Amino acid sequence: MSGESLILVLDFLGVFAFALNGALTAIGTARLDIVGVITLAMITALGGGIVRDLLLGVTPPLTFRDWRYLAVATVAGLLAFAFNRQLLKVVPLITVLDAAGLSLFAVTGAATAVALGLGPAQAVLLGVITGAGGGTIRDMMLAQVPSVLRSGLYAIPALIAAAITVAAISSGIYGIPAALVAAGSCFGLRMLGVRFKWHAPRPPQSRRRQRGDLE
Amino acid sequence: MSGESLILVLDFLGVFAFALNGALTAIGTARLDIVGVITLAMITALGGGIVRDLLLGVTPPLTFRDWRYLAVATVAGLLAFAFNRQLLKVVPLITVLDAAGLSLFAVTGAATAVALGLGPAQAVLLGVITGAGGGTIRDMMLAQVPSVLRSGLYAIPALIAAAITVAAISSGIYGIPAALVAAGSCFGLRMLGVRFKWHAPRPPQSRRRQRGDLE
Amino acid sequence: MSGESLILVLDFLGVFAFALNGALTAIGTARLDIVGVITLAMITALGGGIVRDLLLGVTPPLTFRDWRYLAVATVAGLLAFAFNRQLLKVVPLITVLDAAGLSLFAVTGAATAVALGLGPAQAVLLGVITGAGGGTIRDMMLAQVPSVLRSGLYAIPALIAAAITVAAISSGIYGIPAALVAAGSCFGLRMLGVRFKWHAPRPPQSRRRQRGDLE
Repeated sequence: MSGESLILVLDFLGVFAFALNGALTAIGTARLDIVGVITLAMITALGGGIVRDLLLGVTPPLTFRDWRYLAVATVAGLLAFAFNRQLLKVVPLITVLDAAGLSLFAVTGAATAVALGLGPAQAVLLGVITGAGGGTIRDMMLAQVPSVLRSGLYAIPALIAAAITVAAISSGIYGIPAALVAAGSCFGLRMLGVRFKWHAPRPPQSRRRQRGDLE
Repeated sequence: MSGESLILVLDFLGVFAFALNGALTAIGTARLDIVGVITLAMITALGGGIVRDLLLGVTPPLTFRDWRYLAVATVAGLLAFAFNRQLLKVVPLITVLDAAGLSLFAVTGAATAVALGLGPAQAVLLGVITGAGGGTIRDMMLAQVPSVLRSGLYAIPALIAAAITVAAISSGIYGIPAALVAAGSCFGLRMLGVRFKWHAPRPPQSRRRQRGDLE
Repeated sequence: MSGESLILVLDFLGVFAFALNGALTAIGTARLDIVGVITLAMITALGGGIVRDLLLGVTPPLTFRDWRYLAVATVAGLLAFAFNRQLLKVVPLITVLDAAGLSLFAVTGAATAVALGLGPAQAVLLGVITGAGGGTIRDMMLAQVPSVLRSGLYAIPALIAAAITVAAISSGIYGIPAALVAAGSCFGLRMLGVRFKWHAPRPPQSRRRQRGDLE
């Protein structure tokens, strides 16, 4: 599988996961109708890739040139709407889908950036932005502080996935196995962080402040 | 009238409507001073077109190359500031202006996208983004959930206007009458939706959840 | 010093000030861990310049091509994290740093826009957007109404700095002294506005409305 088709396949998987996540978030936490649900599914699923392409000067973004992105996001949004009662019973599903999208997009974002000539540090950063971008726009539209700010074990796993991807590409061993290792490390670390409520060190000072609005 | 001048005229009308809307929103719901009022007028009026141009790779955006965009937005903002007491008495005016901007920008966004070579589905999507973009940024800056998520009869009318525009262009009958039909359909449907509180189907599950923060 | 290196030096100073500000805001008002603190430092410090470059069609943005931007922002974020107890005791420090970043970026934003061929009014506007952009994204991510809307003496000082810069460039007297005068005027006016609670005229109507959520 060529590097480009690998990016496409991982991108579609990420779009599917994030669209389900966005739709279930819309249903579970905000009282949106079906159009709002599909809209939030699309924004969550396509936001990260659009930001990536804008930063890389790829216009119109891939999302607007390849109809399959829109199709995958719409189908996932409709599935989530149709089966929301069953899906929302699976308690950690929203979190699992978010972690999956984050992991996949961190890999494709970093790989795309390297393919377009960015340096390693910049490619890693762009991977994190691509992974975290859609969820950040989702949270900002719902007037909530985004996960990427609230939990250290959100940006760090994405950083690791992007760094593994960039390292694998520059050592010439990038392919399906390396991409799976990169995405899997991110996914595993993120889910462990959620399960055991791990977080990065907090400044002691902040304990005294109000904490109500953030957690 | 050439396609390009038609886009310009409709764009200016949309900028005027959205700038009045942004300014009155700033005065009516947030306690902003005159600079904040003009700023929100500009962001509401110019946000959608700037997002459209960034996505299409048109940089600097038209707004930064044609001073009349800024002029129209500033004049509308100042008018709204000067006559806010009279204007805010007309209760549905903020909603009417928002619907007008949405309708006009959905048409110009779709027409611009077709002129720059995007496919039909993508052009329709870009019309919706152009129409809903400014109001969405306005609502996010005021820390409110944007209309495009809250009401199904916000994105759907914009989608219809953009689809009529794209269909008219591809059948070679696009012109002032077709543009007015497209914008008028969107405007009429949006206002009917507001008047009769129509919305798209909601997932039954969501009834049990908290509804306070969204409506 | 060439025009380009002057922009670089002022940009780095602005990045440093805004990164300290973003980190201290994260520590002082939101209970973020160290990764969240560094993330908000980066977004505040680099957001304005990225928006400027996207609007000017400079992709990838300078931030992604010159590693020193990332380095300066990261170092400032770590310093703020390490010394947050001492720094947060200096009560107006967050405001002073924000005013410094605003002033420096208004100058570099306007100068960059002129260098890339924008007209004077557009260059001034781009200066304001560059200055206010990072702080606006910071506030939106924390679900707060941005300073640029809340206080007239935020956009106006930036406008003055950008206008002085553009006027100095077009009369051929731009250099370190002119840049310092421009940035200094903005900084001084902003701090006076904060100290004496100056604001631009407010519409009388708005007095009756709720004010709680904005101030």
